[in-house]
Amino acid sequence: MNKGQLLYEGKAKRLYATEDEQILFVEYKDSATAFNGEKKAEIDGKGNLNNKITTLIFEKLQAAGIASHFVKQLSPNEQLVRRVDIIPIEVVVRNIAAGSLSKRLGFDEGTALPRPIVEYYYKDDALGDPHITTEHIDVLGIATATEVEELYKQGLAVNDILRPLFAEVGVELIDFKLEFGRDGAGNVLLADEISPDTCRLWDATTGQKLDKDVFRRDLGNLTEVYEIILEKLGGK
Amino acid sequence: MNKGQLLYEGKAKRLYATEDEQILFVEYKDSATAFNGEKKAEIDGKGNLNNKITTLIFEKLQAAGIASHFVKQLSPNEQLVRRVDIIPIEVVVRNIAAGSLSKRLGFDEGTALPRPIVEYYYKDDALGDPHITTEHIDVLGIATATEVEELYKQGLAVNDILRPLFAEVGVELIDFKLEFGRDGAGNVLLADEISPDTCRLWDATTGQKLDKDVFRRDLGNLTEVYEIILEKLGGK
Ligand SMILES: Nc1ncnc2c1ncn2[C@@H]1O[C@H](COP(=O)(O)OP(=O)(O)O)[C@@H](O)[C@H]1O
Ligand SMILES: Nc1ncnc2c1ncn2[C@@H]1O[C@H](COP(=O)(O)OP(=O)(O)O)[C@@H](O)[C@H]1O
Ligand SMILES: [Mg+2]
Ligand SMILES: [Mg+2]
Repeated sequence: MNKGQLLYEGKAKRLYATEDEQILFVEYKDSATAFNGEKKAEIDGKGNLNNKITTLIFEKLQAAGIASHFVKQLSPNEQLVRRVDIIPIEVVVRNIAAGSLSKRLGFDEGTALPRPIVEYYYKDDALGDPHITTEHIDVLGIATATEVEELYKQGLAVNDILRPLFAEVGVELIDFKLEFGRDGAGNVLLADEISPDTCRLWDATTGQKLDKDVFRRDLGNLTEVYEIILEKLGGK
Repeated sequence: MNKGQLLYEGKAKRLYATEDEQILFVEYKDSATAFNGEKKAEIDGKGNLNNKITTLIFEKLQAAGIASHFVKQLSPNEQLVRRVDIIPIEVVVRNIAAGSLSKRLGFDEGTALPRPIVEYYYKDDALGDPHITTEHIDVLGIATATEVEELYKQGLAVNDILRPLFAEVGVELIDFKLEFGRDGAGNVLLADEISPDTCRLWDATTGQKLDKDVFRRDLGNLTEVYEIILEKLGGK
């Protein structure tokens, strides 16, 4: 499979066409961004780490029966995925209060929620990815009610697999963001990435943050903590 | 019924006990506030206007079959209501995009929504009345799933009555906020007020704003436009 035309350059990845209409070539960049792109840095090795971690996670999800866009890893920072039409909704699943949920509800960071919850954000950089509900999704016309139910169920299903997977290696899965797309047949398919850029991961014993909050909040060296996650997942 | 002890002083009303445990005495104040109390003014006559308008609206809702806390008007700025335990959720119903919805979804103010939508805000001044979903309501434990369904249905039912009522007198009901409480038997009952403080009301022909946005955005004289609404509803 060869890298064809650059189709899209996002904040963290570049998408390229391949000879196969249905397959995209994804290149993970060394860029870190936060606060809707307001904070930025180039961090050597970040692209490799996220590509490897995403690969491991999507492989484990597929083994556990969650279909996704993931096809295979090609190189340290490249992978092949099935092309989908991304649904512009960030599906956030939360186990423990942190970040914007703590601010919204006044829960201290680290407070366990009585059950996992699902939130939706409208993937729109110009609007700042606003928090939306099923009512907004309906009037925006960006997903059907059936699709939203699917996002909800799949969000929780991914959580039911990833939470114990991280727990086994001493990491608490606080929350994470998923993206989904429609494949050629119109099925909703898990897509994008699952990495320390898109999850909050805390060391279960020390509470050390092993995710992008290290960058957002200037808590230390990003690649050092992403390495820890990669190693804990059995990669290197 | 006599005014007993002052039980609560809010931004717009004072609540007093009466001889009857189940009945409260409500006094509408001449205060206008906006932006979570950041902007404030005393406006002569506002209390009378809101008490009269709320009275007319709750009477029309009761005639149309919507049970509520409303008992009767006592004086220009006083009324009796049934005491409820307020559910700390502001139920917002929207027909036309305006205010925070316009900002959230990038819809121009005045854009008709394909259907009325319902939003929930956590009534908590310290948190700034954040936008919440049924998921947040559940983990906050502030209402049951059955109660939230009731809030949703009653919100739309009130809209189905008020929208044509205002339309008949040349006013467009853009959006409004409701509060509900639990009565002694645990039933969900419409409470609080429905006035130009809690609705967006636009002249259907000229588009003139006949509601608290006049105060929020410094668009003119508040009592002048509240008078227009009172007269259009048949009061004086
Ligand atoms: N399988 C896929 N097919 C098409 N687009 C995808 C797929 N997986 C992810 N994407 C999209 O690729 C884009 C590039 O990723 P990223 O750099 O994270 O962009 P962004 O800055 O928009 O977050 C994102 O818009 C994402 O939604
Ligand atoms: N029937 C009722 N029983 C008990 N409390 C009520 C009832 N109707 C309204 N309230 C509450 O009365 C309080 C006073 O009103 P207001 O001045 O608008 O206060 P706030 O500043 O909290 O909005 C509000 O907290 C409102 O929820
Ligand atoms: Mg992204
Ligand atoms: Mg009030």
